[in-house]
Amino acid sequence: MSLNIKKIGVLTSGGDSPGMNAAIRSVVRTCAFHNIECIGIYRGYQGMIEGDFKEMGPRSVNNIVNKGGTILKSARSVEFRTAEGRKKAYEKLTQAGIDAFVVIGGDGSFTGAEIFNKEYKFPVMGIPGTIDNDIYGTTHTLGYDTALNTVVEVIDKIRDTASSHNRLFFVEVMGRDAGHIALNAGIGAGAEEILIPEEDLGLERLLESLRKSKASGKSSSIVVVSEGDKIGKSVFELKDYVEEHMPEYDVRVSVLGHMQRGGSPSCFDRVLASRLGVKAVESILEGKSNYMVGIINDKIALTPLEQAIKGETEIDLELLRVSDIMTT
Amino acid sequence: MSLNIKKIGVLTSGGDSPGMNAAIRSVVRTCAFHNIECIGIYRGYQGMIEGDFKEMGPRSVNNIVNKGGTILKSARSVEFRTAEGRKKAYEKLTQAGIDAFVVIGGDGSFTGAEIFNKEYKFPVMGIPGTIDNDIYGTTHTLGYDTALNTVVEVIDKIRDTASSHNRLFFVEVMGRDAGHIALNAGIGAGAEEILIPEEDLGLERLLESLRKSKASGKSSSIVVVSEGDKIGKSVFELKDYVEEHMPEYDVRVSVLGHMQRGGSPSCFDRVLASRLGVKAVESILEGKSNYMVGIINDKIALTPLEQAIKGETEIDLELLRVSDIMTT
Amino acid sequence: MSLNIKKIGVLTSGGDSPGMNAAIRSVVRTCAFHNIECIGIYRGYQGMIEGDFKEMGPRSVNNIVNKGGTILKSARSVEFRTAEGRKKAYEKLTQAGIDAFVVIGGDGSFTGAEIFNKEYKFPVMGIPGTIDNDIYGTTHTLGYDTALNTVVEVIDKIRDTASSHNRLFFVEVMGRDAGHIALNAGIGAGAEEILIPEEDLGLERLLESLRKSKASGKSSSIVVVSEGDKIGKSVFELKDYVEEHMPEYDVRVSVLGHMQRGGSPSCFDRVLASRLGVKAVESILEGKSNYMVGIINDKIALTPLEQAIKGETEIDLELLRVSDIMTT
Amino acid sequence: MSLNIKKIGVLTSGGDSPGMNAAIRSVVRTCAFHNIECIGIYRGYQGMIEGDFKEMGPRSVNNIVNKGGTILKSARSVEFRTAEGRKKAYEKLTQAGIDAFVVIGGDGSFTGAEIFNKEYKFPVMGIPGTIDNDIYGTTHTLGYDTALNTVVEVIDKIRDTASSHNRLFFVEVMGRDAGHIALNAGIGAGAEEILIPEEDLGLERLLESLRKSKASGKSSSIVVVSEGDKIGKSVFELKDYVEEHMPEYDVRVSVLGHMQRGGSPSCFDRVLASRLGVKAVESILEGKSNYMVGIINDKIALTPLEQAIKGETEIDLELLRVSDIMTT
Repeated sequence: MSLNIKKIGVLTSGGDSPGMNAAIRSVVRTCAFHNIECIGIYRGYQGMIEGDFKEMGPRSVNNIVNKGGTILKSARSVEFRTAEGRKKAYEKLTQAGIDAFVVIGGDGSFTGAEIFNKEYKFPVMGIPGTIDNDIYGTTHTLGYDTALNTVVEVIDKIRDTASSHNRLFFVEVMGRDAGHIALNAGIGAGAEEILIPEEDLGLERLLESLRKSKASGKSSSIVVVSEGDKIGKSVFELKDYVEEHMPEYDVRVSVLGHMQRGGSPSCFDRVLASRLGVKAVESILEGKSNYMVGIINDKIALTPLEQAIKGETEIDLELLRVSDIMTT
Repeated sequence: MSLNIKKIGVLTSGGDSPGMNAAIRSVVRTCAFHNIECIGIYRGYQGMIEGDFKEMGPRSVNNIVNKGGTILKSARSVEFRTAEGRKKAYEKLTQAGIDAFVVIGGDGSFTGAEIFNKEYKFPVMGIPGTIDNDIYGTTHTLGYDTALNTVVEVIDKIRDTASSHNRLFFVEVMGRDAGHIALNAGIGAGAEEILIPEEDLGLERLLESLRKSKASGKSSSIVVVSEGDKIGKSVFELKDYVEEHMPEYDVRVSVLGHMQRGGSPSCFDRVLASRLGVKAVESILEGKSNYMVGIINDKIALTPLEQAIKGETEIDLELLRVSDIMTT
Repeated sequence: MSLNIKKIGVLTSGGDSPGMNAAIRSVVRTCAFHNIECIGIYRGYQGMIEGDFKEMGPRSVNNIVNKGGTILKSARSVEFRTAEGRKKAYEKLTQAGIDAFVVIGGDGSFTGAEIFNKEYKFPVMGIPGTIDNDIYGTTHTLGYDTALNTVVEVIDKIRDTASSHNRLFFVEVMGRDAGHIALNAGIGAGAEEILIPEEDLGLERLLESLRKSKASGKSSSIVVVSEGDKIGKSVFELKDYVEEHMPEYDVRVSVLGHMQRGGSPSCFDRVLASRLGVKAVESILEGKSNYMVGIINDKIALTPLEQAIKGETEIDLELLRVSDIMTT
Repeated sequence: MSLNIKKIGVLTSGGDSPGMNAAIRSVVRTCAFHNIECIGIYRGYQGMIEGDFKEMGPRSVNNIVNKGGTILKSARSVEFRTAEGRKKAYEKLTQAGIDAFVVIGGDGSFTGAEIFNKEYKFPVMGIPGTIDNDIYGTTHTLGYDTALNTVVEVIDKIRDTASSHNRLFFVEVMGRDAGHIALNAGIGAGAEEILIPEEDLGLERLLESLRKSKASGKSSSIVVVSEGDKIGKSVFELKDYVEEHMPEYDVRVSVLGHMQRGGSPSCFDRVLASRLGVKAVESILEGKSNYMVGIINDKIALTPLEQAIKGETEIDLELLRVSDIMTT
């Protein structure tokens, strides 16, 4: 245990995701377990710059393990991208006696932490919190599993009405530049076609696939479209395109949007958050810094923040085959 | 009991809604209970015209009481709006020995039934199935209660992310020309403002209301917008308008769409469906025709189809006051 | 408006139910709307006796409309049943300047309020909060609709496994001496038999009914048993009894228990809570006292507490017929 | 591809679990994809012995990916444990021209398959379907993830009422001789103590832990108890024991029971089922036999059935520490 660490800060930054509260709770209680003070930093890096701090004890985080959102609020801070902003943040942290911080967020939040660490030799530790699962060094980001369940539950509802009317639905899901949500939720929801950024098969293949589905006797079709897909048409344009080329289809569009970021976290995300929080705090206490705590092969693992930021996640190609076979 | 009725048809027509399957099940089993044959008519009036019929016994409707959608499929039929279409339908019904039918659907479906009844003296009975709750002669249409729960659950998720970021969301919900869903789900979800067709207070009032909400210290705002509202701007235009006038707000839009029509029905809708189905069949057997079976003051009640079609539902004005007070 | 009322207390008492938080929120915000102070009384009458009070403003009740349980906590107080206990409570209330209170609870809580009102001429108003729906003067108690949805969702899951194994399940649900939950959730879940206190048809009828169900080709059976039923055997004894008389059945038991009291309230319960809270506060301000605010025929209505306590709710006999027909 | 395999059977056996239907769908569609006939075998090995077979095409498994239970039904067969029973089964399979089968089930089902394979050199492949996650050779069994979500959602509801009344609840969960469900759902639900078969710390430690929880200011306590725990007392006896030693506690018991086996599968279980089904069929076509298809380190992997049966799963000891820290 490092004797130098007496006070650890914790913040959530960037887009929120289910499980962030469970991770905050874990960081706070692990600090308490090791008799370390814990300071909640509100509104991400902006709150750090403004010194928006609050001491947190184990009872501050009662009854939040199952709550969506983040009690510390989140924000994107333009100021923290400037040297002056980071200087202010450093001053506020040192004034408050904070020796290290744990940031729960995504790529952008880690980049900020990494630069800050380089500039001030300030111990930082990252926990990957985003529904998009697009962070290198962890097979699962916090909130991803919950978002998948939210998406399949919604598509199940859409399927009810789609199959009652023999309709085709384009359903747009989140995921930024990665197709993880689309691919997994698409398979889970039994989608007839899945459009992801990692694989652009073009419009012709889409029509073909829909014709095949129609010919096979299916009563409805769901096409899951990742927001980052490369097909070059919005879901609304896709609707027009398909209606023009396949007038026999009654096409509808559903853009799922921000509901995907909310909701009570799944058991997986709650347990993952608990594990990551423990490891983040204990790694700091062991003198480690500038790592992201992730999960690889069901084991908690550290990855240097620099790698986590630069590395790219990959789509499991096996899943593309599985998806194809499932639409037989 | 009418000795003339030996075979009753049942169909779902128009937009589908949760509880339609529970109503089909009730019609089928009530027929079986009274030793009447029951014929499922597929794809609404179009299937009637095409003779798309199938005999249904009590075991045909096992395990559907909790399923969204409609196992009989639904459709809108242009042909049934023509005299020739209805003639074909009449021929198919009589060829199949069907003596009466129960149609589960909304305004448009009832209009078709009413005309058909007038033309052919054919016994018909309507069950109000739509999430919009816009049918006269019943305080609740089938699926309305379920849709309200779907909407509040989704807005609860949106609220998680809205309050993590101090954001304003415009959430568009269904309801056609009626604000029932928006008003009730808006109150249920704790919306800061609700825009419904029945009350157009204008854009200025909206800004005022948002300013009041901001001033009162609220960390996020949800505005529920009925698809039929009269404010003269789409939710996307509302976003632009508010961002222009209140640049301090980060505004997002969510159009809930067709997920509102699907999903497993609530207990209320399942029980209501069971009651309506019993009454529809038994009313036919008592020699009644051309009525809608609805619920008024917690009692099952018949309303002439003609009135059900022409009558207008009204918004409970008390709820507008409640909504105002809740946003204190 | 009564000029004498400047401060209103609010408490939850007895067993908790979903929607209590929404009702607290409504009371607090309606007070704020009318510029009346509102005091939260913690832990029911026991907290009243101990002066466990806290001032509540409109922001004290942010983000609780969708939360189960009660932020004011609840308890049963033996002391409040004594004259001395009530004297202490009166002193604490007057010391705190509280002019009236709203109690959210059931029969027992109302009885306490009624006696207190008689003894001290203290203005009181009741809001019916219990999942059991066993209170006279309201067709729906707060939490009842949510509990029905909880029960049917759980039985849907049990049905999955029951029908996979051709099993019979006895499912015990709450409801105290009333069969409302069992009867409605039983119909909603498609139960093959429903045992309620209001109708004891005996063990022989149960066997008959199960034999009929088996003969009709059903692959599984669910029997919903109200905790207050009069059949004279526990669900565990029923299991033994049926296994002895119908050895072809593999029988299981599930006692749903307290999960029925928790969970996020349904839209119906949230709206009802909002309406009842408004009416409770405004009735006090109009000089009324000693009433329960309920809903009858979809309209908010006042019933003297005395009647609410003594009156009995009745089972809708029509539902028994519907249930019979549904098991055809 | 093996030229000898033209027809593959599929069955579900033993206790059912969510995701079995998704696995059946995957087996059926993978067969269709490879132009292999697929035969559904009803009611597990008993149906195999009785020749209860039905041909299945890709449309036979429409709309089941999200359904709990198993459309093929399941059963435990005493007869299949006898040599005569297996002989009958072999005859029925060969009469129907079935060349191999995929069995979805647990330990017992795999033992049957393994013996059958040895006796008749009949190609078999296992897919682990059980909520208990107690099978060697896979980090996740089908249905386990869904059951975890079901359990935490129910405990969330119980927590609502527990914390409203400052109560202690003993919640018994499934898991047979393994504590996976209890440990993970316990952490996920924020349980104050978790009793699992793998770690018996005795009654004294339980009291200590509850005293610590009380002292730390927690308003309620949830103790999750695995059905296989070794503490030597039932949950009902635990209630009595604690009430005797800690009379300040109002203790309640909830036995979750069979609802844990039902419900719509999580996205994870649906995707896992799809992947396992593809691999099972394709492994048979590659000439492999007598394996279980599982997932290890996020990759699909084969384990000889013999090992899968004999091997033991282990509790992740790290999770015990995490659980301890979380109750700080």
